[in-house]
Amino acid sequence: MTTRVFGHKSPDTDSTGSPIIWAWYLTEIKGEAATPALLGEPNTEAAFVLDRWNLDKPEIISSVAADTPVVIVDTNNPAELPADINDADIRAIIDHHKLVGGLETKGPIDIRIEPLACTATIMYKMIGSDLARAPEGVKGAMLSCILSDTLEFRSPTTTAEDKAVAHALADELGVDIASYAAEMFAAKSDVSAFSDAELLRMDSKEYAIDGTKFRVSVLETTSPATVLSRKESLMETMPKVASEDGVDQVLLFVVDILNEEATLFVPNDLVSQVAKKSFDADVTGDTVVLPGVVSRKKQIIPNLKV
Amino acid sequence: MTTRVFGHKSPDTDSTGSPIIWAWYLTEIKGEAATPALLGEPNTEAAFVLDRWNLDKPEIISSVAADTPVVIVDTNNPAELPADINDADIRAIIDHHKLVGGLETKGPIDIRIEPLACTATIMYKMIGSDLARAPEGVKGAMLSCILSDTLEFRSPTTTAEDKAVAHALADELGVDIASYAAEMFAAKSDVSAFSDAELLRMDSKEYAIDGTKFRVSVLETTSPATVLSRKESLMETMPKVASEDGVDQVLLFVVDILNEEATLFVPNDLVSQVAKKSFDADVTGDTVVLPGVVSRKKQIIPNLKV
Repeated sequence: MTTRVFGHKSPDTDSTGSPIIWAWYLTEIKGEAATPALLGEPNTEAAFVLDRWNLDKPEIISSVAADTPVVIVDTNNPAELPADINDADIRAIIDHHKLVGGLETKGPIDIRIEPLACTATIMYKMIGSDLARAPEGVKGAMLSCILSDTLEFRSPTTTAEDKAVAHALADELGVDIASYAAEMFAAKSDVSAFSDAELLRMDSKEYAIDGTKFRVSVLETTSPATVLSRKESLMETMPKVASEDGVDQVLLFVVDILNEEATLFVPNDLVSQVAKKSFDADVTGDTVVLPGVVSRKKQIIPNLKV
Repeated sequence: MTTRVFGHKSPDTDSTGSPIIWAWYLTEIKGEAATPALLGEPNTEAAFVLDRWNLDKPEIISSVAADTPVVIVDTNNPAELPADINDADIRAIIDHHKLVGGLETKGPIDIRIEPLACTATIMYKMIGSDLARAPEGVKGAMLSCILSDTLEFRSPTTTAEDKAVAHALADELGVDIASYAAEMFAAKSDVSAFSDAELLRMDSKEYAIDGTKFRVSVLETTSPATVLSRKESLMETMPKVASEDGVDQVLLFVVDILNEEATLFVPNDLVSQVAKKSFDADVTGDTVVLPGVVSRKKQIIPNLKV
């Protein structure tokens, strides 16, 4: 049976590219038939990357049949995976997030989690010299994943390993990192096709802090003004999304990639209090700028207080 | 703060040796101060191994202070670890068991799980060429872990990698595998110092099958007759241990390492039914021999039915 390789729901570049990389490795190098899949439409940056490297868009699936062999990449969180994931035959997990608990496997399997910025960097290490046999598209996907997850090395999640791998790949592919990353980020910043509710859910994770449930949404963009121009309607949509998703409050951080700062939307006193307690930010209007904040994983979640 | 490295409760050779190996690696190669620990008295085989390679017996601990940096080896099961494990600062997990779920980490950490017979084999791969700098005791511990967990390559959990690593280490150390393994297994078979209740709990894991809770105990021995001579009192002790530990039934498998078979104690109709349904064994007396069965992980647990 063909192995399915997929990442998390709401696929970004790493969750779109890593399944493609690993399915290639399993099929061509290990001789185990594997196909990549997506758990939703790729975001605009990921769609740009597929197009740029002439990669087929993987099939979009929402469930896996029982006992299907699967490899999970870029997450270990059951909430970000199909509801029936524990009935699948999970063969391996490759990830760079904290261990959440909740996934169970039927026997011992290969699990590799490392505190690097990007799943593709871990795959680069695991594939080793066999990468020489990879087509350009696989290497291009790998480079794109790293530039995306590190925000072109600006994110504090970036490690020396991520950086070295990206530079090696860019050299080999003849890609100028600065201009290619700018193209990727421009694609990510084009959010015109998305409704307000879609924007609030696009890159979003749920967290409970002292009993208050938040949907923590991040929009990474090189054009924050585009998102800020939709402030009123985004704020109006927040209570609706919160209610539909069973959380108390949506927190929207608009991350300005180039200026390395985030703008937090402040629709009410609860969020004003969160801004004060979490980031020592004094709110005077309905948004507040948080200098230096670009990473949900390293800077937003660890500091969140209510 | 010094990192604590430890394995599971009721330490066998792999859970005694692997912390010693990894604490050496962290301290001497990575420059991060680390000390091994044990979550209980090592079994007789592990005690023999410490003595044979002049290794200090690690300190026995039963809890970890909050925020202590720890590396967990040879398990990922919170039930086999101190109750306060999730308050510790878990830095890494190196294991060869199925993912159980339940451990959580504060951030992304190094997790390496592989379907090999032994934790020490994974460490051998991770340490790589730096192993050349290890003292004899560390290499001896590594060899011992592999021979113990593979029952000198008899267990179906044995992989080509485990075997190759053990042979490489034995060659370098000038150890004759057959005679050294025989010494280890003789040490493990000397159970005279243990009470019946201690024997039933020594190498034991709890599993629920269709609502019935079992304590699945395995005694690996080269002298099954020694254990069988205590059959009556062991059987009398089973209901007491089951009641104290909150399970419905203790299942005791006496694994004959040399003849590669297990003897299951059959104290009542429930266990008789388990023997029939799980192993297609027709029970006529109060024990039944299961030819070829030596591995709880590969042969007992996956087949257990009630």
